[in-house]
Amino acid sequence: MSKQRGKQTVELANPVAIPSSACVAGSREGRGPLRHTIDSIYEDSLTGGVKSWEQAESAMQKDALNLALSKGNFPEKSLRYLLAGDLLNQCIGSAFSARTADIPFIGLYGACSTMAEGLGLGAMLIDGGFADRIAVVTSSHYCASERQFRLPLEYGGQRTPTAQWTVTGAGAAVLERAALSGEPDHPLITHLTFGKVIDMGIKDVSYMGAAMAPAAFSTLSAHFQDTGTGPEDFDLIVTGDLGVTGSDILRELFANAGVTLGQNYTDCGALIYGLTEPDVSAGGSGCGCSAVTLCGYIVSGLRARRWKNTLFCGTGALFSPLSAQQGESIPSVCHAVRLVGGKQ
Amino acid sequence: MSKQRGKQTVELANPVAIPSSACVAGSREGRGPLRHTIDSIYEDSLTGGVKSWEQAESAMQKDALNLALSKGNFPEKSLRYLLAGDLLNQCIGSAFSARTADIPFIGLYGACSTMAEGLGLGAMLIDGGFADRIAVVTSSHYCASERQFRLPLEYGGQRTPTAQWTVTGAGAAVLERAALSGEPDHPLITHLTFGKVIDMGIKDVSYMGAAMAPAAFSTLSAHFQDTGTGPEDFDLIVTGDLGVTGSDILRELFANAGVTLGQNYTDCGALIYGLTEPDVSAGGSGCGCSAVTLCGYIVSGLRARRWKNTLFCGTGALFSPLSAQQGESIPSVCHAVRLVGGKQ
Repeated sequence: MSKQRGKQTVELANPVAIPSSACVAGSREGRGPLRHTIDSIYEDSLTGGVKSWEQAESAMQKDALNLALSKGNFPEKSLRYLLAGDLLNQCIGSAFSARTADIPFIGLYGACSTMAEGLGLGAMLIDGGFADRIAVVTSSHYCASERQFRLPLEYGGQRTPTAQWTVTGAGAAVLERAALSGEPDHPLITHLTFGKVIDMGIKDVSYMGAAMAPAAFSTLSAHFQDTGTGPEDFDLIVTGDLGVTGSDILRELFANAGVTLGQNYTDCGALIYGLTEPDVSAGGSGCGCSAVTLCGYIVSGLRARRWKNTLFCGTGALFSPLSAQQGESIPSVCHAVRLVGGKQ
Repeated sequence: MSKQRGKQTVELANPVAIPSSACVAGSREGRGPLRHTIDSIYEDSLTGGVKSWEQAESAMQKDALNLALSKGNFPEKSLRYLLAGDLLNQCIGSAFSARTADIPFIGLYGACSTMAEGLGLGAMLIDGGFADRIAVVTSSHYCASERQFRLPLEYGGQRTPTAQWTVTGAGAAVLERAALSGEPDHPLITHLTFGKVIDMGIKDVSYMGAAMAPAAFSTLSAHFQDTGTGPEDFDLIVTGDLGVTGSDILRELFANAGVTLGQNYTDCGALIYGLTEPDVSAGGSGCGCSAVTLCGYIVSGLRARRWKNTLFCGTGALFSPLSAQQGESIPSVCHAVRLVGGKQ
C-alpha cells in the first residue's frame, strides 16, 4: 500500500510512538523558560569531565540517549538503529558518541533540521517493518560551534541583532511500533514531509533565520496542501530554528500567500531562551535547539494533553564557513513531522 | 511483515531495482582500469567551468545525477527523494548540488560509506511504500579533500605508503520499485546490513584502511551470520575503501576467524587506480571512490551477467582533522548491500 500523499508527504500506515525521550543542556539553557522540561543541566561547558568542547558534545549525546533508554526501561540492545547527526565537521559529535554504543549506526546531516530528519526517517524504518525500536539523537555545543563556524570565543566578537545563539544541548527520542506500547500517553508520529533545498540568495551568516524561512514556507505549504490541512488544524506548529526574526519572516511569507500563522505558531529558537537572556540576539539555533525542545517541551506537552495535533518543522542552514568565504549564499531545508497526542 | 533478519540485517520484501546509474570522475581516475565504466571524465580539476574545487564537487554531483536520469529517461520530478552526502565540512558538496534540484532532500553523513548507506536507506524507503523512485548521490574531490583534511596541495607533502588518495568523482544511482521496471537486466538490491561504529584505537590518519578494516569485518560477519551465508556464496565481495593495505588486514581478520576471503574479494580503493599510478600509495578513498566503482563497474558487471550475487560494503572513517588533532582515534563504520543480477 502506498503511503505517499500528494507531492511530498508520507502518511504512515501505522502511527509510530515516542515511548521515551530525554534532553540535556548547558547552564544558559537551564536558566531559560524550558528548564523544567530538561532532564539534566550541566554546570560547566565540559559536562563535568572531558577535555574539549567537542568531547563534551559527544558526552551530551551519550547522556541524552542513556537517559531516554533508562526512562523507558529499554536495554540498549533493543535498539535496531541509532540515527544521529550534528553540526561539527564530519559529524564527530555523533560518531564519537556512537562508538560506545553497540547499535547499527545511520549518520545524518541536516544541520539544525537533523532531529526532524531523524524522526521522519526513523518513523519510516519502523512503519516499513525494518525495525521495531530505534533512537534518534542530535546535539550542538555553543563553544564548539562558535570556534568552528564563527570566531574563537576569546576574541569576544560583537553579535548582530539577527544572530542566533547555538544551543548547548542534546536530545534523544526513542521510536517504536505503536503496537508495542501498551501505554496510551505516548505521542505518535502520523505524517512527515521532507523538504527541498531552497536558496533565496541570503549570504549573511548572522541572519540564518532569513535564509531558512523560505524553506520552512515551502515545506509547511507542501504539508498543508498534501494533507488538506491549514495552520488552524494544529494546536501547535513549531519551527526550529528560525529564531525571532526568522519566525517573523515566515509569518509574513504566509500572510503574503493569504494564510495566517496564528497564536499556535512558535519557534524552538524563540522558545528556548525566552526574552530574559540579553546575549542571545534572535534566539537559539543548532541541532541541539530543536532536539532539546522536541524531546523535552513538546513531548511532555503532548503527554500532558496540552496539545493534540502538532507540526514539528526542523529547519537547517546547509552552508559551511568555507562556502560563506567563497561568497556563496545559504541553501536551507525544512522537514516537517506531525506528532499527535496518544490514543485518547 | 517483519523484514528483519538476525541481529542487523534487512531482507527486503520485494527487491529494489537500480534501473539507471552514472558516474563522473577526474583525469587520474579516467586513466585507471575502470575508465571504460566512467560516463564522463573531466580534463581539469574545476570540471571545466567553476571557480573552486568545492564548487567542482557540487558540479560533479549534478552531472552524475543528470546523466543517471537521462540514461533512464527519467524526469527529475519523478524522484521522490534525493539522498546525498559527501566529505566536505557540513556536506556542502551535496547541499549546493541539491539546491538546483526540485526534489525533497535527505542529507547523509557516512564518510566513504555514504553510497552504501544511501542505497540501504533508499531501498528501505521504496520497499516500505514511501517512494516509487529515488536517487542516491555522493562525491569527493581530491583537491578539496586534501586542503580540508590534510595539507594545502601547494605544500607538496610526502605521502606514506599506507595513505590513500581521495578520488575525484561522483556517482548517482536511481532506485525504484522493481515492479516498475519491465527490464530484466536491472540489478536488484535484496538485503542490507547497517554496521556499528567500531574503533580499535588506530590514530594514524594516513592509515585509514587499518582503522576501517575491523568495521568491515564486523558488518560482513553480521551479514554472513544473519543470512546463513559465507564468502563462497558471493561471486563478488567488494569493500570500499580499505585500499590495498586495509584489504589485506580484512583478509587476515577473517583468516584468524577461520574464514577465507578468496579471489572473489576486492576493494574499490584497490580497483580504481589499479597498479599503474605511482602516487596513490595504498589506493583510492573518499565518498566518490565507492560511488564511482558501484555506479559504473559493479552495476555494469551485474547487467552484463559477469556476476550474479555481490556484496557491496561501504566503509567510512568517521574522524575529522580536529578529532585527530585532539589525539582521538578513528571510529569507523561499514554498511553492506547485497546486489544481485536481474531476473534471469
